[in-house]
Amino acid sequence: MSFLQKQESRISFMKSYRKEIWFNTPHRRDFINITGDVEQCLTESGIREGLCLVNAMHITASVFINDDESGLHQDFESWLEKLAPEKPYSQYHHNTAENNADAHLKRTVMGREVVVAVTAGKLDFGPWEQIFYGEFDGRRKKRALVKIIGE
Amino acid sequence: MSFLQKQESRISFMKSYRKEIWFNTPHRRDFINITGDVEQCLTESGIREGLCLVNAMHITASVFINDDESGLHQDFESWLEKLAPEKPYSQYHHNTAENNADAHLKRTVMGREVVVAVTAGKLDFGPWEQIFYGEFDGRRKKRALVKIIGE
Amino acid sequence: MSFLQKQESRISFMKSYRKEIWFNTPHRRDFINITGDVEQCLTESGIREGLCLVNAMHITASVFINDDESGLHQDFESWLEKLAPEKPYSQYHHNTAENNADAHLKRTVMGREVVVAVTAGKLDFGPWEQIFYGEFDGRRKKRALVKIIGE
Repeated sequence: MSFLQKQESRISFMKSYRKEIWFNTPHRRDFINITGDVEQCLTESGIREGLCLVNAMHITASVFINDDESGLHQDFESWLEKLAPEKPYSQYHHNTAENNADAHLKRTVMGREVVVAVTAGKLDFGPWEQIFYGEFDGRRKKRALVKIIGE
Repeated sequence: MSFLQKQESRISFMKSYRKEIWFNTPHRRDFINITGDVEQCLTESGIREGLCLVNAMHITASVFINDDESGLHQDFESWLEKLAPEKPYSQYHHNTAENNADAHLKRTVMGREVVVAVTAGKLDFGPWEQIFYGEFDGRRKKRALVKIIGE
Repeated sequence: MSFLQKQESRISFMKSYRKEIWFNTPHRRDFINITGDVEQCLTESGIREGLCLVNAMHITASVFINDDESGLHQDFESWLEKLAPEKPYSQYHHNTAENNADAHLKRTVMGREVVVAVTAGKLDFGPWEQIFYGEFDGRRKKRALVKIIGE
């Protein structure tokens, strides 16, 4: 009997967990700290050792890790506008039905996804690492995916 | 006997799969949609839950996720040429034996790799996500790697 | 008895491994080849098939894959200075207590992390791939994380 119980527990030896986090930002561009949401996912998953993927499910949004400091977020905003300006819309071939080509480029700079180590049931972070959802074409329902695999 | 069969089945509990996808692009720079190739790899792997890594095996190429829209691809081309121009070749210290320094920089902007969640045997994608091989120094044989782990 | 031993060996079926690599670079900006360190981690882990995550644990540093060629590294330095100049410090809102806003932006271009396939006990690399720690605000103790999962 004890043996069968051990078998049972081993069947969940490699676990996987999935959750979507939804957004509907008030502005075209926003940065939202989702570290707490991802930590809650990790707790729900029961996974102690593994990898946690967090990715934007939309191609005009980003998930990235950096500092939760408002001055830096202003710097990101103006820097991305310099590297890939929103306007004039006519500068981009993509801007026919939509005017969001700059959002595709900005998301490319910031990255689609992060992979975070899971150690002893925690996100294995350095001192200032925080996970952000970066929205570059908001004011509509969009989402990020959390997928955790491990044991 | 039944017990030994269960043991057998558990030995393949965490699976891994590997495949190379080869390219020989006609131009120095090209974007190739490889979503179908990666989906075929996933089917071959038999993996239902896990993570799928797709990376360029060359440092002048990229694997990235974005929209399969030709206007956007033109925008990527001119934007990358603005951020990291191919010419004059003499502007880069790297350009001695080869003239591909710009390709190293362009690939850096676009990224080396993507990690995609695998859920219920499918690439767990949002509505417009497509995987591309981005070539920045083509006209030769090069390759991307697909590695899937899971159960 | 033989059966119990088999149980034991299966308990380590999915393995995980973690190590920090520490740095204290002499300059504000440096690129350090850590491929050998990561290979040593992989050997220590005993993992044959899986995924290896290497990430900066600081938000002003990067882990990236590119060529170990000094001319290219000079090109990265001047290119990043053009995209996100260090000075004047006053151009960035983030520069109040510290003057490292440019380091946050440079690390964003270069990326926080790499995920490398592990195949037959080796880093599954193309011909020129090397892993670098990219420091953009050095002269202090900082670290990268190596996390490997697999079997």
